[in-house]
Amino acid sequence: MSFCSDLVLSNAKVVSMTPGQDGYALSPLCHLHIKDGRIAAVSQQPIESQNTYDCQGKLVTPGFIDCHTHLIFAGSRANEFEMRLNGVPYQEIAKQGGGILSTVKATRQASEEQLTELALPRLDGLIQTGVTSVEVKSGYGLTIDDELKMLRAAKALEAHRKIRVSTTLLAAHALPPEYAGRPDDYIELVCKEIIPLVAEEQLATSVDVFCESIGFDLTQTEKVFQAAAEHGLNVKGHTEQLSNLGGSALTARYSGLSADHIEFLDEDGVKALAASNTVATLLPGAFYFLKETQLPPIELLRQHKVPMAIATDLNPGTSPFADLTMMMNMGCTLFGLTPEETLRGVTSNAAKALGYGESRGQIVTGFDADLAIWDISHPAEFSYFQGAPRLSARLVAGELDHV
Amino acid sequence: MSFCSDLVLSNAKVVSMTPGQDGYALSPLCHLHIKDGRIAAVSQQPIESQNTYDCQGKLVTPGFIDCHTHLIFAGSRANEFEMRLNGVPYQEIAKQGGGILSTVKATRQASEEQLTELALPRLDGLIQTGVTSVEVKSGYGLTIDDELKMLRAAKALEAHRKIRVSTTLLAAHALPPEYAGRPDDYIELVCKEIIPLVAEEQLATSVDVFCESIGFDLTQTEKVFQAAAEHGLNVKGHTEQLSNLGGSALTARYSGLSADHIEFLDEDGVKALAASNTVATLLPGAFYFLKETQLPPIELLRQHKVPMAIATDLNPGTSPFADLTMMMNMGCTLFGLTPEETLRGVTSNAAKALGYGESRGQIVTGFDADLAIWDISHPAEFSYFQGAPRLSARLVAGELDHV
Ligand SMILES: [Zn+2]
Ligand SMILES: [Zn+2]
Repeated sequence: MSFCSDLVLSNAKVVSMTPGQDGYALSPLCHLHIKDGRIAAVSQQPIESQNTYDCQGKLVTPGFIDCHTHLIFAGSRANEFEMRLNGVPYQEIAKQGGGILSTVKATRQASEEQLTELALPRLDGLIQTGVTSVEVKSGYGLTIDDELKMLRAAKALEAHRKIRVSTTLLAAHALPPEYAGRPDDYIELVCKEIIPLVAEEQLATSVDVFCESIGFDLTQTEKVFQAAAEHGLNVKGHTEQLSNLGGSALTARYSGLSADHIEFLDEDGVKALAASNTVATLLPGAFYFLKETQLPPIELLRQHKVPMAIATDLNPGTSPFADLTMMMNMGCTLFGLTPEETLRGVTSNAAKALGYGESRGQIVTGFDADLAIWDISHPAEFSYFQGAPRLSARLVAGELDHV
Repeated sequence: MSFCSDLVLSNAKVVSMTPGQDGYALSPLCHLHIKDGRIAAVSQQPIESQNTYDCQGKLVTPGFIDCHTHLIFAGSRANEFEMRLNGVPYQEIAKQGGGILSTVKATRQASEEQLTELALPRLDGLIQTGVTSVEVKSGYGLTIDDELKMLRAAKALEAHRKIRVSTTLLAAHALPPEYAGRPDDYIELVCKEIIPLVAEEQLATSVDVFCESIGFDLTQTEKVFQAAAEHGLNVKGHTEQLSNLGGSALTARYSGLSADHIEFLDEDGVKALAASNTVATLLPGAFYFLKETQLPPIELLRQHKVPMAIATDLNPGTSPFADLTMMMNMGCTLFGLTPEETLRGVTSNAAKALGYGESRGQIVTGFDADLAIWDISHPAEFSYFQGAPRLSARLVAGELDHV
């Protein structure tokens, strides 16, 4: 990524999202000096520069971070969605090749270039809602080659848009059909072959597991986490979405970056996350789309001061939403989060969930100059009104990207 | 509106939405001849023209119609939204000037020009989801001058964007503070002064009433409908949203265009709508945002063949959504509608709800050339994946509007 050497954003109403301050830490009008891709100074005095962008009193936030997506996939599940609404039984849909394996099939057939190309309109949706960093998981390849292909396709997005991509290996997403009845053999492949290769080629910084009765059990999950740790990769988990298996506590035990979904998390699990400073990533889009009724334990998470993030979980099966601010609205409407919590959930806490807590997600001297400039008057608006365009510009590593 | 005299859309995958045909009435590739703002021919043979737009196999639908909005208002209710989520009791919010009366206050203070200006970003949100016709209600003025000002501001949108605006007088939306304790006196003002003036100045084609325990009762609603009928205006109602008062049946008795919300409608009410061919307009955005649990009687509406429309109900208090396709997703996800029903609900049936059933909302020779061209492969996609941009262009009265 190339850096713009010197830029001043003048007359910015800065929402710094620094912790320890009340509310949004909304500043009076100030001026940001951007240098070498970083925030060099935040000042209430005007800063002289040859290269000034006048924010005209607009709101400036940290660029939004979508810390949980499955952005890379081929095929559409619209047909399956329609069959379901027309009352076709689940078995019949599965027989016709529906479900996650239909996405696996289409993703295996697609080339790396095709996968990148197919993801661009989805990425554009996220970008329109202020996203400057996006996490992308593999998990629809389920072979060595196809998992690596997905991760490369995700990384390649950076060549097409001003965006930062964090990649996560989620080979343990579902059991590939070739391994039917042999989940432990597949976990062996993941641990002994896929993880070492991904680490060697630096294709991902984290490893994720779908720890669930319909995914992988606690023992299998721990094997994957062990292998990840041995290869210097961070761990995170799809945990406690449909039942309480203890996956979140296991993730915490491996100093995981985040435990995601967590509708069924109990107080012991919450305490475990708190002890390891693991982020609780809430995914209201999937909750809404699956018509779930079990709410995540928001009040316990607050009590134990677990940092909460909000993400799209963008995926074709359970969260077909390329819109991070709509997820913020769902966080408030469905989960009872406050607009401040949801904003923290897509900035400072989302940065933590990706391992960038000390360099992104806040407007602080020394942090990455990843910013969003908005045509709105108050930060509560992000979670409230949806659909009307209101992003003026983004900065990624100090480079301006006009809307 | 000026008309483009002659245009051909070639290689269009037409979703005509004509009734009596199976499903979407999806055609093989065909060619549309547009003349004088109307569809002059739909042909499977190429049509010669100096002025051809090649759809390259893209999907072409009738332009979407949002048949129920409160697009014109001033002020923001983000603050109230935030207070509520921070646990501030409703009474305290009301004491601080929250609720609908805060919107009334801000709207009264705004000029006609300001109201138009404030509505443009919201309108742009709708336009991005394929809308070519939008209904806009008054109802935040609640004085003669302010209601008329709102209707003029709505009409003025047509000068700023390629859009058709249908205006509805909703003076009977809430009791203005000046009439506290004297609802019948206010209804008298509406019937004797506002409706005649609006009819005389042709500022609206329909009259609407919020018929509810917290709005106006059945007797008051009927008085307004009578006055509307006397002045040659259509009627429609906000009915059976929070309780069953019989407002929908009353609307049907006055040959109303639509009964809107209708979560609490019973079978007698459904039969009444069927008998008068009144459209049932479903508003899932308000259902979602208010966390309602009473579902509209979808199965009964199907049985009795009541035409169903879907709209945003865009408003600052209960449906802050400028996104018609997200409402289609909610129609499917929350109400169990099929993607075909939701598409009909924003095309042919929405046209009926505005009194344009014979001239808009279908791709048929002689109908208005209001069209949307989409970069998607199947019409079920409209209700499914949200957030990724996919509109290529719109036509309003035959004039192309590129995205
Ligand atoms: Zn996920
Ligand atoms: Zn309404």
